[in-house]
Amino acid sequence: MRIHSQGHDLPRHNCGLFGVCGAERAADLAHLGLYALQHRGQESAGIAASDGRRISCHKGMGLVSTVFADKAVLKSLPGRCAIGHNRYSTTGSSRLLNAQPLCVEFKCGPLAAAHNGNLVNAAALRRAMEQDGSIFQTTSDSEIVLHLVARAPAGPLPDMIAHALSKVAGAYCFLFLAPDELIAVRDSMGFRPLCLGSLGGATVVASESCALDIVGAEYVRGIEPGEMLVLGAGGMTSRRLPAAPRLAMCIFEYIYIARPDSRIFGTMADKVRRAFGRRLAEEHPAGADIVIGVPDSANTAALGYSEASGTRFEIGLIRSHYVGRTFIDPHQSERDLKVHLKFNPVTGVLKGRRVVVVEDSIVRGTTLRQLVRLIRRAGAAEVHVRVGSPPIRFPCFYGVDMSTRKELIASSHTVDEVREFIGANSLGYLPVEGMLRTVPAPADMCTACFTGDYPTAVPEDFQKERFDAQHAGVR
Amino acid sequence: MRIHSQGHDLPRHNCGLFGVCGAERAADLAHLGLYALQHRGQESAGIAASDGRRISCHKGMGLVSTVFADKAVLKSLPGRCAIGHNRYSTTGSSRLLNAQPLCVEFKCGPLAAAHNGNLVNAAALRRAMEQDGSIFQTTSDSEIVLHLVARAPAGPLPDMIAHALSKVAGAYCFLFLAPDELIAVRDSMGFRPLCLGSLGGATVVASESCALDIVGAEYVRGIEPGEMLVLGAGGMTSRRLPAAPRLAMCIFEYIYIARPDSRIFGTMADKVRRAFGRRLAEEHPAGADIVIGVPDSANTAALGYSEASGTRFEIGLIRSHYVGRTFIDPHQSERDLKVHLKFNPVTGVLKGRRVVVVEDSIVRGTTLRQLVRLIRRAGAAEVHVRVGSPPIRFPCFYGVDMSTRKELIASSHTVDEVREFIGANSLGYLPVEGMLRTVPAPADMCTACFTGDYPTAVPEDFQKERFDAQHAGVR
Amino acid sequence: MRIHSQGHDLPRHNCGLFGVCGAERAADLAHLGLYALQHRGQESAGIAASDGRRISCHKGMGLVSTVFADKAVLKSLPGRCAIGHNRYSTTGSSRLLNAQPLCVEFKCGPLAAAHNGNLVNAAALRRAMEQDGSIFQTTSDSEIVLHLVARAPAGPLPDMIAHALSKVAGAYCFLFLAPDELIAVRDSMGFRPLCLGSLGGATVVASESCALDIVGAEYVRGIEPGEMLVLGAGGMTSRRLPAAPRLAMCIFEYIYIARPDSRIFGTMADKVRRAFGRRLAEEHPAGADIVIGVPDSANTAALGYSEASGTRFEIGLIRSHYVGRTFIDPHQSERDLKVHLKFNPVTGVLKGRRVVVVEDSIVRGTTLRQLVRLIRRAGAAEVHVRVGSPPIRFPCFYGVDMSTRKELIASSHTVDEVREFIGANSLGYLPVEGMLRTVPAPADMCTACFTGDYPTAVPEDFQKERFDAQHAGVR
Amino acid sequence: MRIHSQGHDLPRHNCGLFGVCGAERAADLAHLGLYALQHRGQESAGIAASDGRRISCHKGMGLVSTVFADKAVLKSLPGRCAIGHNRYSTTGSSRLLNAQPLCVEFKCGPLAAAHNGNLVNAAALRRAMEQDGSIFQTTSDSEIVLHLVARAPAGPLPDMIAHALSKVAGAYCFLFLAPDELIAVRDSMGFRPLCLGSLGGATVVASESCALDIVGAEYVRGIEPGEMLVLGAGGMTSRRLPAAPRLAMCIFEYIYIARPDSRIFGTMADKVRRAFGRRLAEEHPAGADIVIGVPDSANTAALGYSEASGTRFEIGLIRSHYVGRTFIDPHQSERDLKVHLKFNPVTGVLKGRRVVVVEDSIVRGTTLRQLVRLIRRAGAAEVHVRVGSPPIRFPCFYGVDMSTRKELIASSHTVDEVREFIGANSLGYLPVEGMLRTVPAPADMCTACFTGDYPTAVPEDFQKERFDAQHAGVR
Repeated sequence: MRIHSQGHDLPRHNCGLFGVCGAERAADLAHLGLYALQHRGQESAGIAASDGRRISCHKGMGLVSTVFADKAVLKSLPGRCAIGHNRYSTTGSSRLLNAQPLCVEFKCGPLAAAHNGNLVNAAALRRAMEQDGSIFQTTSDSEIVLHLVARAPAGPLPDMIAHALSKVAGAYCFLFLAPDELIAVRDSMGFRPLCLGSLGGATVVASESCALDIVGAEYVRGIEPGEMLVLGAGGMTSRRLPAAPRLAMCIFEYIYIARPDSRIFGTMADKVRRAFGRRLAEEHPAGADIVIGVPDSANTAALGYSEASGTRFEIGLIRSHYVGRTFIDPHQSERDLKVHLKFNPVTGVLKGRRVVVVEDSIVRGTTLRQLVRLIRRAGAAEVHVRVGSPPIRFPCFYGVDMSTRKELIASSHTVDEVREFIGANSLGYLPVEGMLRTVPAPADMCTACFTGDYPTAVPEDFQKERFDAQHAGVR
Repeated sequence: MRIHSQGHDLPRHNCGLFGVCGAERAADLAHLGLYALQHRGQESAGIAASDGRRISCHKGMGLVSTVFADKAVLKSLPGRCAIGHNRYSTTGSSRLLNAQPLCVEFKCGPLAAAHNGNLVNAAALRRAMEQDGSIFQTTSDSEIVLHLVARAPAGPLPDMIAHALSKVAGAYCFLFLAPDELIAVRDSMGFRPLCLGSLGGATVVASESCALDIVGAEYVRGIEPGEMLVLGAGGMTSRRLPAAPRLAMCIFEYIYIARPDSRIFGTMADKVRRAFGRRLAEEHPAGADIVIGVPDSANTAALGYSEASGTRFEIGLIRSHYVGRTFIDPHQSERDLKVHLKFNPVTGVLKGRRVVVVEDSIVRGTTLRQLVRLIRRAGAAEVHVRVGSPPIRFPCFYGVDMSTRKELIASSHTVDEVREFIGANSLGYLPVEGMLRTVPAPADMCTACFTGDYPTAVPEDFQKERFDAQHAGVR
Repeated sequence: MRIHSQGHDLPRHNCGLFGVCGAERAADLAHLGLYALQHRGQESAGIAASDGRRISCHKGMGLVSTVFADKAVLKSLPGRCAIGHNRYSTTGSSRLLNAQPLCVEFKCGPLAAAHNGNLVNAAALRRAMEQDGSIFQTTSDSEIVLHLVARAPAGPLPDMIAHALSKVAGAYCFLFLAPDELIAVRDSMGFRPLCLGSLGGATVVASESCALDIVGAEYVRGIEPGEMLVLGAGGMTSRRLPAAPRLAMCIFEYIYIARPDSRIFGTMADKVRRAFGRRLAEEHPAGADIVIGVPDSANTAALGYSEASGTRFEIGLIRSHYVGRTFIDPHQSERDLKVHLKFNPVTGVLKGRRVVVVEDSIVRGTTLRQLVRLIRRAGAAEVHVRVGSPPIRFPCFYGVDMSTRKELIASSHTVDEVREFIGANSLGYLPVEGMLRTVPAPADMCTACFTGDYPTAVPEDFQKERFDAQHAGVR
Repeated sequence: MRIHSQGHDLPRHNCGLFGVCGAERAADLAHLGLYALQHRGQESAGIAASDGRRISCHKGMGLVSTVFADKAVLKSLPGRCAIGHNRYSTTGSSRLLNAQPLCVEFKCGPLAAAHNGNLVNAAALRRAMEQDGSIFQTTSDSEIVLHLVARAPAGPLPDMIAHALSKVAGAYCFLFLAPDELIAVRDSMGFRPLCLGSLGGATVVASESCALDIVGAEYVRGIEPGEMLVLGAGGMTSRRLPAAPRLAMCIFEYIYIARPDSRIFGTMADKVRRAFGRRLAEEHPAGADIVIGVPDSANTAALGYSEASGTRFEIGLIRSHYVGRTFIDPHQSERDLKVHLKFNPVTGVLKGRRVVVVEDSIVRGTTLRQLVRLIRRAGAAEVHVRVGSPPIRFPCFYGVDMSTRKELIASSHTVDEVREFIGANSLGYLPVEGMLRTVPAPADMCTACFTGDYPTAVPEDFQKERFDAQHAGVR
């Protein structure tokens, strides 16, 4: 069982991808891009670069600024094409082996790969390949795809990759780096975002458009579901994987994951998030004096709530950004302290006020419970919690780590029970209906975590857990 | 010459103090308190603790979470009394010797001291003591006070400290820790804040009340200008230094330094800061569509501006908290990048809008200039900068590092020249008059950085710089 | 091209293995064992332990004391069986991926492997497996064997391992750790040593007997060429790989690699090394005043030389053990300095004397040249170099890194040319004949580096180099 | 109480000094010199350099190679004069504040100082200065001298230093570095060695001549007892402190401290050490088969013993240089292990033999006891311990840390009791008489640790311990 370690009661982000082809010092650009995507993963970071002949790779545990603290490292990654990867944080042991890009050699030479997403048939594929004589050195499902590429009939690399991906189901954006080409591909359902930019003569791909901005690249368009871009000496070519019966773009990117200044699935994240807040105000008004958001991410929805409700927006919680990650052992008595170290209630704002607290989503409810307590201690007269998403009742199998179903408070509690648990005067979630009416292409979104309506077959027995445990055989 | 390294065009904070007497594991409480005061100084951190007989000390370069990363360190600081110190960051070499608390031995035994503020007659005192045969191992003016205490006529420690402090001029809050007592003292003009709290049977003192909150202590009152508190086995006694002709509480604590959830000089910082914003709106209205603050600190003033002007508050800049400190060399071409890495403009909010940007203060103007450029690039139709404080035209000699006068853009440029430099459509500062009307005790505040009206004699020739250079003889 | 980085003109050692089964805290014993085997490899160290169900692994770059500096690490490796590995140092980049034990998962569960030796058909096997769809994540030939095990027909693990090893040619001792058994195996030609010990009810295996001594285990016997020991719940069983046409035990273990206090191939290393020295005296007497060895390793041969020649043994060079590894860039002008930092000539011993300097072997001759210069500068009247092994003229393909043939000075220079290069008055090598008469089983030794008489087919085109370069595609 | 942490039953070394004036990149030379003097102190290392105007300083805990691992550090120490210092290791907490050179500012500007030795009136001086209003930031007696210099009547620095030194008693070599001169001074009794060399136009001083060798400097002469050398723009001048009634050069430098390839007090250390061994053989013959030394330091004396006795010298113990310092907690049961990790008995040499084991000296006897046990376990028929110095019965107050008197086994046990404790068949010490007959100037040596005949007044009550404890008030 994994516990969300950040004291913030939200799903863990997944991963961030950045690729560039055709630029001087491509690794330097990848470095900047990974900075902009740091919010998508803080466990490890890595960059692989190609100088046309060889692929060099560096990865490590920790933030981008840590892994690439030594400037000599970037210098040791020469070449005009590079891919970078940020991996999400876990509470467990450091797993450098799982850091990406994965770099291997196979019959066509060296190959590096970076993956955002989660495959749903990983366990079955792995089992089959093991039976067939393969060895696995990581617990990552990304390694499976590299095996599949290596086993594909020899041919141009894009064909081999397409062949490999025809075997897998689930969510993925992949960046592959070979000595002479960079291949970016997004699954046919389009679970995770990936966008395309141009920077002078170079081509850039990134999980979010904010990474284009930081390197000064122009946003061109999103990479389509099922699209494979091949970038190389001959310029860029686009091809298609077989179409899927439906699209399933992760609505959680809008709710929480993406940076507000990113264009996601073609639309600015903050615009959608703001609309969620407005809709939330309509669905769940509250006779309150002020609206506050849980910083930093829920401020956008809170502004929307404020706008639609006419209730004044305030900054009622200050977030400290100095809290070390490993500061305090997660003993229950210390958890309160940890939340307090991270969030400082502004008494002058809260005292005597009826307060609407807007949060993006609720996973387990424990952090929010402590926040409500903090806000009450600061003198709030009433605390009305409003959540910019529906109750999360089902685990995600597509790359967002929301813990197990058992831990999802809404999977086993009514809204009123959740309200009581967190100690709020009232609690209102954004209903699924209302949420969908707010997004550009409601039919194309994945809302499985709210509805259980999974767009793919799910792993056998719903048991993501078992899979984890099994692979933990080699730690 | 020191350059503000943070890409944020604001004065550097000074230092944070925390002391506790009469509690189990006092060092653990000091550790928490320093976390809450981290915003006052990030260069180094340290704690000295007394078990009644011996004083143990640990200090190091970096954030509290770094210096005390190893739990064994806190365990090595036993006892019921402790003092802690955060020191502000500098661009120069690491100066562990300058980290505080300073721990020495003198005729009465061991003594530790932590200091927030700046003495104005330090150079003269040091020169005189050197002539008299003293050696100095740091470049800190705090060491001077320890020499003075050691040279005071033997007697009870509080008398010796009072004697020593009668020789110094300038700004200080001091915490002294002897094996059997903790002495907290604030200068007679009251430049820097220091408050008193109680926690069960223990007594707590801290630069800001937010540090009382984090340890669960109750706010009792501010320590008065010229008050010395002696905490020991016999409980707490209060005595007075000779009164000063006037008070001179640092108004910059309200403008920028203090955390908004802190009570400073008896009043909540966010309340005053908000009022500055309101007043600013009255003084400098702008026909704009939205108001944004430079995060995180200027959001409070921006909310006030929004409230008074009726212009909608928005979050138009997202601040990244992952940017490593030592990331990029400060070549001019990279400075823009650094600001961009730190602040991400939200296009959806800014595009096509007439934007009021509220900032706390302007020191050199370089960061704000880059921010204005970023905001324009994001599509803002107009950018109106409003500053929640008057033009800074004079250096501070009382503990806030605003660089040299030469660097203060307002010391040599008119408002319109500054506006042109930063590239704004309009620029409005909060006038001194308006600012003073907004604070509780206008006559008791120090506004020297705006007016040049220094409440004390200033160092000879205005040359803080020369003093620094001279002491740099031993690096 | 790899350059011997240690300033000591000798081949690089290969690797050290230690395994234990049936003991409390097996990882602690492995830790001690690796300390005793540190001389066999300093690049990286690692331990994998099994608690009967799971395998835990920790490895890192550097010495055993560095990799296991944190005691918590050993605690995180529970169980009654463990294997450990020391890897030799290289000048290149740190290659954590190549550190051993390699830990993988395959169809039968988790498996860890540690290898000492070198396969001669690695390139061909790897190429074939790549063609067949395998991916490789390291540049180590050990990974190939894990692939072969995974591809073997399902069955008991020892059978699968035997099947895998039937495909490989070359030198190896392998330790495999599965959740419920530890398998130790030595190739049929017996290139590298591996011995068996017992410690209470536990069984211990190690590259050298000195590792048995340190854990207090009793030496039982050497593991035979082609023997596979299976240690598990059912005790120990021994089985045999198919016999080889001849044995080929590495004579370099006696010359230089093994610790003098180790039993190697059943005989104490120091006894053989001493005999080499005596023989050397008979073959190459020198009218000298004193005999010195190049410390520490050549002292044993020097004592033998002294004994047989009647010339007094002296300590004429003091070796400093404080020299950091990365101290000085290898510019030619600094190499002298590096040798000087490491070896201090004792003037009082050398001055005016005719000196015999005994060294174990000569690879490139550069260090010895500098040593001769140092000894002359200390006043030696004559310097007669005597080498306790024959001229090394052929590269080793069985696990001892003697650089490429091109670098072996004796491969392209006569003895007299070598003498002139190193600047000695005379130079005498131990002849192959004489050397072989001195060892217990001359016919069973591999002497290929002296004679070119390789006991196996050698890698295509003699080009170990090309293989390295090819695999460097992924760095 | 301090315990000798090295598992080697010998006194701890004291400190190493190196200074150079008039050379390009003086700090680089100091760095090399400190490498050569590393055996004199491993706790901390530091260098101060002067560019004629400013003094830059870097120091840190650990070996020279650790403290100066980053090349940028040496580059940050510009100038043509530099002094360096190695400090001996302690078991206690890291005391960076005590690392040297101490760098202060006083009335004449910046000053750095490095000290080898120990003052006997330090406690009294410190107490008096504290009474007089001084503060102390370290627990080092060296700080006292800096206070005294600062308090001396203003004048040329050499005069001020001479004035200061007229107040102190005890053992010292001091190097002082001011912006424009380097002053080297040795106490009038000449306790510790200091020698003079020349390197092109530059002047070099060092504790031992081996540090001259490493930088390529020529040995000129020893600095005389009571001599002060002033090196500056005007070249070198020599002056004298008042003469002492007698000389008292530390005979332990010959016995153990100095490197054998160093000239000490004008004579090569290995020559004297060898003579001790010969004399020991005459005084205490043993009917043995072989002679071994405890490596590495006692090999020289063992060679002398071998020579004089005609008994064959052998290498019976191999010393491992890979043992980490902090490896194992000093629980008694683990101490044996620690000795075993460090010393490997060579069974082939020892088995069945009657062995003479030569050791330099015995402090507490615990390590030797374990070594004797190891040697017996390796099969030695008899173990005869011979010690190249007399029984240590009195603590040293002049800079060699031999623990307290209580810990000195010979202070409370007869030779036969010591023999029984260490488990030897026989035990023979070198008698004082015999030792003195072997050294060049017997009347000028200090032998107080053997005879109790202290050449100075000793600290009150013999209680070095109390002094330590008292100053531990501030840790």
